[in-house]
Amino acid sequence: MSNIQLNTHISGRYNQELQDLTHSVLTMGGEVEQQLHHTLLALKERDPALAEKVVFNDLKINNMEVQIDEECMRIIAKRHPTASDLRLVMTVSKAITDIERIGDEIERVARTIAKQHIPDSGQIHSSMLLIGEHVSEMLRGSLDAFARMDVNSALLVYKQDEQIDLDYKGLIQQIAAAMQKHSEQVTDWLDVLWAVRAFERVGDRCKNLCEYIVYLTQGADARYATMETLQQKLQ
Amino acid sequence: MSNIQLNTHISGRYNQELQDLTHSVLTMGGEVEQQLHHTLLALKERDPALAEKVVFNDLKINNMEVQIDEECMRIIAKRHPTASDLRLVMTVSKAITDIERIGDEIERVARTIAKQHIPDSGQIHSSMLLIGEHVSEMLRGSLDAFARMDVNSALLVYKQDEQIDLDYKGLIQQIAAAMQKHSEQVTDWLDVLWAVRAFERVGDRCKNLCEYIVYLTQGADARYATMETLQQKLQ
Repeated sequence: MSNIQLNTHISGRYNQELQDLTHSVLTMGGEVEQQLHHTLLALKERDPALAEKVVFNDLKINNMEVQIDEECMRIIAKRHPTASDLRLVMTVSKAITDIERIGDEIERVARTIAKQHIPDSGQIHSSMLLIGEHVSEMLRGSLDAFARMDVNSALLVYKQDEQIDLDYKGLIQQIAAAMQKHSEQVTDWLDVLWAVRAFERVGDRCKNLCEYIVYLTQGADARYATMETLQQKLQ
Repeated sequence: MSNIQLNTHISGRYNQELQDLTHSVLTMGGEVEQQLHHTLLALKERDPALAEKVVFNDLKINNMEVQIDEECMRIIAKRHPTASDLRLVMTVSKAITDIERIGDEIERVARTIAKQHIPDSGQIHSSMLLIGEHVSEMLRGSLDAFARMDVNSALLVYKQDEQIDLDYKGLIQQIAAAMQKHSEQVTDWLDVLWAVRAFERVGDRCKNLCEYIVYLTQGADARYATMETLQQKLQ
């Protein structure tokens, strides 16, 4: 399967608007990637000030969502898109909600780091960095697939979530063991648990982004199928 | 502030389509309410078979989301809605994503009950039923406010999440204490924790629904304001 082709329109300005819209999503996605990068750096260097900066910066991403959503409505009202163009605009409107909430999950991790509530355990700390790196790769892959509307890449990225789920389950076991061993620190460990859970949820939302790409390129029927069926069909 | 008035259209059929669209959202919401009702009953009666029925039924809700979304696109392509009609259709498209994911959270609770992994503790069991009841009230309130597009009700329902957050924090403390006391059962308690977290997230998603109502009735600028500012302005 190849990339989706935007319909060509009599109005070059309309083409430009659709391209700008996709570009805005990628700019927003880039901001969220940057937030994740800083969060992982703050985690690695145990730098609460950097984590606080991430928390503060989340507002910017929320505003980007609103602006892109308004642009979607402006295009629909002015250009009356149909078929694949309409599907693109509606998908953008949904995708930015997921991207904004990926930003929220990252902010949640950053808040925990800012509170300095990561108890000192070499193994858990390095496992958290590892799941964070995997999440970061998946986010980059999802945004790349979105940029190129590449359904095969989207299906590959979708499968990366299996690794994140493995990382996550391993971390939960490590945290549960730490809770058993240091039961006086249970509430601190719960904070770590929420941070790990937030990483896992970023993976889930990247899966949503991949699903949107598949629906957009494969049409409405794809939404009734499972991603597993589509993987078999397309590969 | 009063309810939003749908624009009156030359085409009575178009009016009917917009009304049917809102009605579909409420039907879908009603299904999700029913799922929550059954989940709470399964929790109360410790009935894993009923919980499994909830898990099975989630597929129906996912399909409703797809159908309504297709209807949104059909209306946009055919009717070229503008202004408040377009805002309504776009809001419906976003709201059903939240309603579908409320269904997913409820399914998550039901899965835990189906596994019979709720350790026997009278206090935590009754606290879970209580947060479930509060979540249920908030869901009903959100759907009612959506049905009537009533911004004041939406703002009141939005505030109900504060009670759910209090319930949630109390439960986390109870679970943390149980983990400290029975550290050999930590993994079972983690399952309970995820179920409680899922309830809390239903509350968050009901807040999203309320935000959509405010946005729909107050226009684009409302999305840049905080709900707290809007509450002060509107009440």
